[in-house]
Amino acid sequence: MLVELVSIGNELLIGRTVNTNASWLADRVTRLGGVVRRIVVVGDDLDEIASALREAAGRRAELVVTTGGLGPTPDDRTMEGVARALGVEVELSEEAFRMLKERVGRHVEAPHVKKMAYLPRGARPLYNPVGAAPGVLVELGSTIIAVLPGVPAEMKAMFELHVEPLIKQRAREAFYEAEALIEGVYEATLAPFIEEAMRSHPEVYVKSHPRLERGRSIIQLHVARRAASLEEARAEVEEVLKWLVQQAELRGGRAQRIK
Amino acid sequence: MLVELVSIGNELLIGRTVNTNASWLADRVTRLGGVVRRIVVVGDDLDEIASALREAAGRRAELVVTTGGLGPTPDDRTMEGVARALGVEVELSEEAFRMLKERVGRHVEAPHVKKMAYLPRGARPLYNPVGAAPGVLVELGSTIIAVLPGVPAEMKAMFELHVEPLIKQRAREAFYEAEALIEGVYEATLAPFIEEAMRSHPEVYVKSHPRLERGRSIIQLHVARRAASLEEARAEVEEVLKWLVQQAELRGGRAQRIK
Repeated sequence: MLVELVSIGNELLIGRTVNTNASWLADRVTRLGGVVRRIVVVGDDLDEIASALREAAGRRAELVVTTGGLGPTPDDRTMEGVARALGVEVELSEEAFRMLKERVGRHVEAPHVKKMAYLPRGARPLYNPVGAAPGVLVELGSTIIAVLPGVPAEMKAMFELHVEPLIKQRAREAFYEAEALIEGVYEATLAPFIEEAMRSHPEVYVKSHPRLERGRSIIQLHVARRAASLEEARAEVEEVLKWLVQQAELRGGRAQRIK
Repeated sequence: MLVELVSIGNELLIGRTVNTNASWLADRVTRLGGVVRRIVVVGDDLDEIASALREAAGRRAELVVTTGGLGPTPDDRTMEGVARALGVEVELSEEAFRMLKERVGRHVEAPHVKKMAYLPRGARPLYNPVGAAPGVLVELGSTIIAVLPGVPAEMKAMFELHVEPLIKQRAREAFYEAEALIEGVYEATLAPFIEEAMRSHPEVYVKSHPRLERGRSIIQLHVARRAASLEEARAEVEEVLKWLVQQAELRGGRAQRIK
């Protein structure tokens, strides 16, 4: 299942906020067997939101998950941006209004609260068990778009409640990964063995992350693959990591398994 | 100066790595007076890299900064992806080879080290004062593309050395921001005042970030603007933040300035 993430918020574009929502979602989607192909960050701007969504649909993403821009303040414009991508207007959703009322009681009539029940016409509201703003599920061509809040606790709860089941239903692959820290060899020394491993195991993905710690070279070696079953993925990943660690040890490296 | 960031690496798409490079760059570009309009994350895939770059150029970004994928291992494919976007091949750059030799000495002849001196034809190599891999500066139409490594210490040093001067030369605006924490009022209570502030100060950007801490509602209020001079930006931001804090205090909120 091909997935794209669209993170919405000016705070991401000025570097005020680190996009931990995207890394959390990418990790979850991957573990559920989905494939995140692209992450796009745009500001709270209707045209930018609409074009990011249309482009993802044009790339035939099966699912797009957006985060951010659902709150009560005027800079929260994601629902309007989604509506623009769909070519519809936002309108008061009776169901979203009931959800909102359940969360905030009599405050629901305040205009800035009520705003959160205005959804793109035809959208299915998603209950928010943690905060006030409902999300939505809409379709753009053959792409499902799940629109979630940016507050991490709300986003995570709503992902688990509404989006996980969709991915589980459709994802056809399992994902397994393993990692080791290797000290005392250069990345360029390991490179030919990584290349050989990737050539003889074309389904396995190997990535080395070099860093210096108190003047010593440390390589974090990450091996992963997707396969029809977790067992199949695990067997090949473990075989490749074991072989690479042996090559490093033969060249004076010390290895430590970390995952 | 319109800027886009392209972060390259499968590790970002499986959620293994949080994209702190992008937030660091976004913060720096903003403070230098540039405007980051979009951040795109793609995997170590030639077509994905090439299409992300072409799309950014198509959106008339004046500068694109890429990070990641310059190392010695076979999954480091950014130079090939940049070459594909430009419609050229990679070839051994004598200048990059000299830079690399200065960094790694006699190891430069090992194939996986030498690989790092293969740049898109016609690209200008950028010296890496911290690690081995040179970056490059290329032009795609009227868009300048700066290609930097993904290792944070290398990326930061190369940004300061090679990219900051470009932005300073071209950026025409200053940026000023201020923040306060507000406790004891709901976001929806503040929303009409935020709306009023944004209406009467259309150049000022106000964003509220709500969160719960031990059951208490806390709103982080962020006010920013760009202007021809820092003084002009500061004066209006301070005026708006002061007024919003007053409105919150009149409604029982307690405010604390944090930036």
